[in-house]
Amino acid sequence: MSVTSEVRVRYAETDQMGVVYYANYLVWFEIGRVELMRSLGMAYSQLEEAYDCILPVAEARCRYRASARYDDLIQIETEPALVRSSLVKFAYKIWRKASEGEERKLLAEGETTHVVCDKEMNKARLPEKYVTALKALMAKE
Amino acid sequence: MSVTSEVRVRYAETDQMGVVYYANYLVWFEIGRVELMRSLGMAYSQLEEAYDCILPVAEARCRYRASARYDDLIQIETEPALVRSSLVKFAYKIWRKASEGEERKLLAEGETTHVVCDKEMNKARLPEKYVTALKALMAKE
Amino acid sequence: MSVTSEVRVRYAETDQMGVVYYANYLVWFEIGRVELMRSLGMAYSQLEEAYDCILPVAEARCRYRASARYDDLIQIETEPALVRSSLVKFAYKIWRKASEGEERKLLAEGETTHVVCDKEMNKARLPEKYVTALKALMAKE
Amino acid sequence: MSVTSEVRVRYAETDQMGVVYYANYLVWFEIGRVELMRSLGMAYSQLEEAYDCILPVAEARCRYRASARYDDLIQIETEPALVRSSLVKFAYKIWRKASEGEERKLLAEGETTHVVCDKEMNKARLPEKYVTALKALMAKE
Repeated sequence: MSVTSEVRVRYAETDQMGVVYYANYLVWFEIGRVELMRSLGMAYSQLEEAYDCILPVAEARCRYRASARYDDLIQIETEPALVRSSLVKFAYKIWRKASEGEERKLLAEGETTHVVCDKEMNKARLPEKYVTALKALMAKE
Repeated sequence: MSVTSEVRVRYAETDQMGVVYYANYLVWFEIGRVELMRSLGMAYSQLEEAYDCILPVAEARCRYRASARYDDLIQIETEPALVRSSLVKFAYKIWRKASEGEERKLLAEGETTHVVCDKEMNKARLPEKYVTALKALMAKE
Repeated sequence: MSVTSEVRVRYAETDQMGVVYYANYLVWFEIGRVELMRSLGMAYSQLEEAYDCILPVAEARCRYRASARYDDLIQIETEPALVRSSLVKFAYKIWRKASEGEERKLLAEGETTHVVCDKEMNKARLPEKYVTALKALMAKE
Repeated sequence: MSVTSEVRVRYAETDQMGVVYYANYLVWFEIGRVELMRSLGMAYSQLEEAYDCILPVAEARCRYRASARYDDLIQIETEPALVRSSLVKFAYKIWRKASEGEERKLLAEGETTHVVCDKEMNKARLPEKYVTALKALMAKE
């Protein structure tokens, strides 16, 4: 099952082509995975502080389908795509939200892969309750 | 053959992990491909203005090997990986520059794929002289 | 009267001091004034498209009182501080939202001054209905 | 005396008005003051690491005169405007570099005020050699 977050496109996020600059989709991916964690009752900030556990990105990928524009309402759909105690993968879909007379439109799709580390960047293990909750979300329709 | 550009890590580019935020590598990729074009005597800005030709990103991918830190001198190595008049692909290597007693270190690798469009986002063709110059660079050892 | 918008601090907005990078407050100011306009039923995007009218920033100023941190809920309080058909000034207060047992805290204050222009950056006049609505908001307690 | 740094405008720094987004001037200010410090033989990164001393911004101000555009070569002129062991102020001028047939053009001016702190954000004192070097630079014509 995926978790949906919403953001509105900021002027700062556009470029001179009049669309959202391509690197900003990775910022939205980050918002998506943080809100996914929060929806499970587990703030990412707490993971860092209470468990000395961080999730640096090992790989990021984005396929761009259509342009996001200034002031668009954006939906970020995030789901866990792979969950191990040493490695987590998220998948994302970025949509322009439906408005009067217009269906929602897929703007981009992507994935990020995260290696579980401690703050000194040594390999670490994701706390069991996180693994369980993420796997449960993945199994849910 | 690849073209090398250099940037120094800005404070603005770091995050609270003390390393460069992952989306900024895509900004560096952009600098790399712009400088590659410039090295061929063809400013990207001119491509937009004189030829009504833009190169929106269809796909971007980055694999992160090691962290870039504040004030690091970064080398962006860019080469054309595929050149057609309708589509261009660039490959990038991001290095921390060698300093006294330390060899240069590979921080990230990635690719971007670009569809050739006009400013209304209709498919277009890359001007022949760009195709030729990019292919020549690709063929060079 | 001021209009309040809410954002959550993104990882991308932090720097290696562990706090929000100082330039990002100007991005929040922009969100504040856009949401102020929207609350008056006048999207900023419409101002650009329907009236060929833009509001480039002539001056920006920010005084930093306390640090915003990752995942903080931020309140942006915006009010018009000066309204003429040729020039608009907004004032902002940035707060960390109150949470259990903690009062809200003032993080920053600032102002931006905007000159009314057309898209070719010639001086222009703000449409009368915008002037009226902004002045009405200013007069409201 | 001022110290001059050079940057080229990145696509990422433009917005849909076709000019550099206003918050990015504060990023350039940061580059200016970091390069000023480096020109004195004192890397800002070293100040943080060796002296547990940081310079958070207490106030920032920018007056925008003309727009910076994509691919412009930008000169950042920075000088110390006030130097005490508890507080430092820098002044900046942002120029579009002269090119064939065109004089350099002033794009923006600004100031930042910094309070000297340790990493726990307690007030601290700037190491004496930094105070001396900054004051010497200020006194130089």
